[in-house]
Amino acid sequence: MKFEFNQDREFDMIAIGRACIDLNAADYNCPMEETMTFTKYVGGSPANIVIGACKLGLKTGFIGKISDDQHGRFIEKYMSDAGIDTSNIVVDKEGHKSGLTFTEIKSPEDCSILMYREEVADLYLKPSEINEDYIRRAKILLVSGTALAKSPSREAVLKAVALAKKNEVKVVFELDYRPYSWASAEETAVYYSLVAEQADAVIGTRDEYDVMENRFNGKNEETIEYLFKHSPELIVIKHGVEGSFAYTKSGETFRGQAYKTKVLKTFGAGDSYASAFLYALVKGKGIDTALKFGSASAAIVVSKHSSSEAMPNVEEIEELISVNA
Amino acid sequence: MKFEFNQDREFDMIAIGRACIDLNAADYNCPMEETMTFTKYVGGSPANIVIGACKLGLKTGFIGKISDDQHGRFIEKYMSDAGIDTSNIVVDKEGHKSGLTFTEIKSPEDCSILMYREEVADLYLKPSEINEDYIRRAKILLVSGTALAKSPSREAVLKAVALAKKNEVKVVFELDYRPYSWASAEETAVYYSLVAEQADAVIGTRDEYDVMENRFNGKNEETIEYLFKHSPELIVIKHGVEGSFAYTKSGETFRGQAYKTKVLKTFGAGDSYASAFLYALVKGKGIDTALKFGSASAAIVVSKHSSSEAMPNVEEIEELISVNA
Amino acid sequence: MKFEFNQDREFDMIAIGRACIDLNAADYNCPMEETMTFTKYVGGSPANIVIGACKLGLKTGFIGKISDDQHGRFIEKYMSDAGIDTSNIVVDKEGHKSGLTFTEIKSPEDCSILMYREEVADLYLKPSEINEDYIRRAKILLVSGTALAKSPSREAVLKAVALAKKNEVKVVFELDYRPYSWASAEETAVYYSLVAEQADAVIGTRDEYDVMENRFNGKNEETIEYLFKHSPELIVIKHGVEGSFAYTKSGETFRGQAYKTKVLKTFGAGDSYASAFLYALVKGKGIDTALKFGSASAAIVVSKHSSSEAMPNVEEIEELISVNA
Amino acid sequence: MKFEFNQDREFDMIAIGRACIDLNAADYNCPMEETMTFTKYVGGSPANIVIGACKLGLKTGFIGKISDDQHGRFIEKYMSDAGIDTSNIVVDKEGHKSGLTFTEIKSPEDCSILMYREEVADLYLKPSEINEDYIRRAKILLVSGTALAKSPSREAVLKAVALAKKNEVKVVFELDYRPYSWASAEETAVYYSLVAEQADAVIGTRDEYDVMENRFNGKNEETIEYLFKHSPELIVIKHGVEGSFAYTKSGETFRGQAYKTKVLKTFGAGDSYASAFLYALVKGKGIDTALKFGSASAAIVVSKHSSSEAMPNVEEIEELISVNA
Repeated sequence: MKFEFNQDREFDMIAIGRACIDLNAADYNCPMEETMTFTKYVGGSPANIVIGACKLGLKTGFIGKISDDQHGRFIEKYMSDAGIDTSNIVVDKEGHKSGLTFTEIKSPEDCSILMYREEVADLYLKPSEINEDYIRRAKILLVSGTALAKSPSREAVLKAVALAKKNEVKVVFELDYRPYSWASAEETAVYYSLVAEQADAVIGTRDEYDVMENRFNGKNEETIEYLFKHSPELIVIKHGVEGSFAYTKSGETFRGQAYKTKVLKTFGAGDSYASAFLYALVKGKGIDTALKFGSASAAIVVSKHSSSEAMPNVEEIEELISVNA
Repeated sequence: MKFEFNQDREFDMIAIGRACIDLNAADYNCPMEETMTFTKYVGGSPANIVIGACKLGLKTGFIGKISDDQHGRFIEKYMSDAGIDTSNIVVDKEGHKSGLTFTEIKSPEDCSILMYREEVADLYLKPSEINEDYIRRAKILLVSGTALAKSPSREAVLKAVALAKKNEVKVVFELDYRPYSWASAEETAVYYSLVAEQADAVIGTRDEYDVMENRFNGKNEETIEYLFKHSPELIVIKHGVEGSFAYTKSGETFRGQAYKTKVLKTFGAGDSYASAFLYALVKGKGIDTALKFGSASAAIVVSKHSSSEAMPNVEEIEELISVNA
Repeated sequence: MKFEFNQDREFDMIAIGRACIDLNAADYNCPMEETMTFTKYVGGSPANIVIGACKLGLKTGFIGKISDDQHGRFIEKYMSDAGIDTSNIVVDKEGHKSGLTFTEIKSPEDCSILMYREEVADLYLKPSEINEDYIRRAKILLVSGTALAKSPSREAVLKAVALAKKNEVKVVFELDYRPYSWASAEETAVYYSLVAEQADAVIGTRDEYDVMENRFNGKNEETIEYLFKHSPELIVIKHGVEGSFAYTKSGETFRGQAYKTKVLKTFGAGDSYASAFLYALVKGKGIDTALKFGSASAAIVVSKHSSSEAMPNVEEIEELISVNA
Repeated sequence: MKFEFNQDREFDMIAIGRACIDLNAADYNCPMEETMTFTKYVGGSPANIVIGACKLGLKTGFIGKISDDQHGRFIEKYMSDAGIDTSNIVVDKEGHKSGLTFTEIKSPEDCSILMYREEVADLYLKPSEINEDYIRRAKILLVSGTALAKSPSREAVLKAVALAKKNEVKVVFELDYRPYSWASAEETAVYYSLVAEQADAVIGTRDEYDVMENRFNGKNEETIEYLFKHSPELIVIKHGVEGSFAYTKSGETFRGQAYKTKVLKTFGAGDSYASAFLYALVKGKGIDTALKFGSASAAIVVSKHSSSEAMPNVEEIEELISVNA
């Protein structure tokens, strides 16, 4: 099966959600307490995904809200320089700051992050700042789950999803679950279900689907039985080193392998996966190939220092796939 | 056309939303400043609707949250004594109070209300307090729009709607728009659209549909064109003294006349309308008859002092209809 | 010892704090759940105190914030009609409501109240709404402890106290402790101590002084040892039916007896006590006489239905004192 | 005049307030948007002051609240390693983060900061976390004005000031005004006045005294006339490059000159001033000498990259003074 898109749309993908600042510890294998120097990158799952997709050659745009300060201006310029359309990035005028993520890499297996997410600008995107004319120019609206965590960003995303469906834009829901920001697990489950039921494709880890279903140790079969009663036609469930599964409404199942690389850290794997997986779909490749693209891209990013800067190009991905064929 | 229900369900209607306290000025034709005595009633749109429906003979239940104080206990006892199942009314344990509505009747044309809705218990109903087993016992889940105004009540209602649909319970959405409590008109429109699109029937005034569509002077034709692309099969739009319209997905239109009575005040008209309209539908009467029931019930309530206590019985409604036939 | 006032001041007393609505159950000896009718009065400790003082013949004014609705207008008119200067009562323009107190009298020994204090107008009085020219026209600034419970009312009161001291207005601090509204017992203790240390006279129950000292079972001797290191010259500590004690910085102790009356309810006793006690001081009577006035006034109010309306006149107080002499 | 201290106290100075993280742009003369690397330091006015005082040889302690994460642990370790007693630094257990300050040095005249102060741990210090036994061990309690900006830190500071006065610890109030965090200028004025009136010494810029008095273009003479009616015995008012003035209650006035140095940035000048000024007072030097110490220390810090790390030792200060003598 192939996942079909509306070919008369100008943008391959428009993402909605947060674009933030990563401050990566300059040192590896070191507790952050002892790190005295940090390097700045653009971060945030949907920002990373469009940056990755743009590097692969897709035409992309971004809908989000950034701070009216040096960090916000850096984000806008970085994305614009990368080739992303930033015309629908709104500058916050109420003093909200850009979210921050300090990363700590004690060892490849022991990575952690320290996030600043209080009153961040991205969660203040308003429904009135969502532009129907812009959304209808896209093949894909990529929705990041974290953007549902708080009002008014939550309502902005719900409105964007409604407009995408009205205008036959494929809604891809990247679950991107982050426990902070949410009031309760029940609240997350309500909105994750609501958007997943309306999406055309859903991508997430097994743990993230459990969050959506508000349960533990859920089974893929039950998840797809539930979601295929609603809009989704394609469901991707990632199981870490065991690889990932793609299910179609028509009944097919595909399994993708994880590629082995020298892992430096775990950050950015999911975002690079999504960007390359969706690139492959947009380019008309089969789902089995798309799974390989996703896995290869993730493997490359975890071997490098940053998430956004490290996004691979098509040649790097194809080379890794061919080496492992 | 008839609106069909799942006949094997124990409850004709379960309503979800607020049950509050009305404090009605003892005096008519008097500014509230000069009123020294107030009489207490149960109030709140969905509470009034089930009280009215119960009086007409339907088997009803209620899902909501009440204060752990004298007002909350009064509400529970009144509803229970009226014959409503109160097993799914939750008592708030976090100190939230019951909502209050002081009414003022300066003249039949000049009525106003003074509401206490800060941190009220009904808006603290949580999704974890929604019981799937209970919802599946109903023919109708009646959803009151005001219950969507704030979290966590908002998520509780969204969950209840999802469970109703999963269990083939008809969702009737009474728009019941109250401007306080909502953060913005855009926010209201997002949730009203979301629930209306999932409902089986929607009832509201023309103004309330405009709120749902976030516009002014909307046309019924555009409203039904929009909603009939989604779940609704029946849409009732009320135009005050000009009567009300019912539209079906299959293309029928019905018009109901407003009945003239000696108007004492305007409160309670919408709630009594909904209770009698839904009673008629449940009893298998045609939509044209249901419109008459709604209008007659409203006419009776506006001629009396309270909203809940004044709900008519079937004989009163039928008599008014026959007098005006 | 006599407590001396600046005799060239126009107002005997200006009070600062809340003026609210009492809704008294029409029925006695009845749980509120069964009470269907409520009677409206002006309430709130400092409002009651000025109403009582005004009835006794003092020239009084009030500083506070009321709601821009029927309840606020009722409060303003009632106080104005009672003879209180209301020129410094500010009308809230941000939608805050008047506080409400429903009273329940199950028996003379079993009275309770149900309060609505969320986002009430009185706690939104701002420091910029405090008028130095007004305060300097008073002999006494009566400060109610509850007005310290939240910002910005807290800062308005702190500013008023500073201005009173600067202008040689006697600050009388009525502790008036209400557990709701305060964030913690520690917070209450900080502000109660701060204002008590700056006051010229402090009035409260033994329990309220314990709140100020953040302790249990405090001793009067320790309380006065602490406070007399600071500004206070007069400290009144009430012990309910055991009567009250007045201590002066110069070392005198006075004991007042409680008067026996047919008790109907306990509400309003403290407010009527303060109004009559301060009336006596202003009129140049000795502290021993002032204690009698306070006790007599309290005894009269607890035998009647309301707090504000029931405030006695001088003749009633003197008669009760002479009968018990 | 000399400012006398209780000589039997173990700590020369205990400071209360915030200890945070500075992230200084690695590049000079560069907009922050273009800076990719940041260096981490401990920051926050009272933390800088004790670090500076400690480096000069005073025995110091700190009262504050830090985050339970890598940043909080870095702060605690840095201060402890510097020789500061950290036994009364509390670790926040409610998820609050350390405050952050990104610095930008476009030119020596054009420096700016970007602060993260939402829900920061330091503003969650509670009154119950203030330890009387600790405070009474100090000669000086140094209070930072910013710690008054929000509850419960505000109440913790008010309690600490009360305990200091009770135990004859000199209260030095460093106004340290930062516009964010405060609800209004009026609110700041209320608390700044309240603490300044109770302090033994007050230090601030002319602009900060204007904030305390809620006015513009205030005069030093009016400021000292007001404050000397209350507790203060020593008032220092800084006028930037025009130098600073010290006033004593006994009527003396001292003027200190600003020292010229190669200015790199303006951050940290006030903190280094306070640490050296207070060091001199504690060491029994005259006020005129203390003013020189303050100015010299400030001049040294503004010529270096950080605020805390750059604090000079006594020899550096004395050398600068002697060179300019």
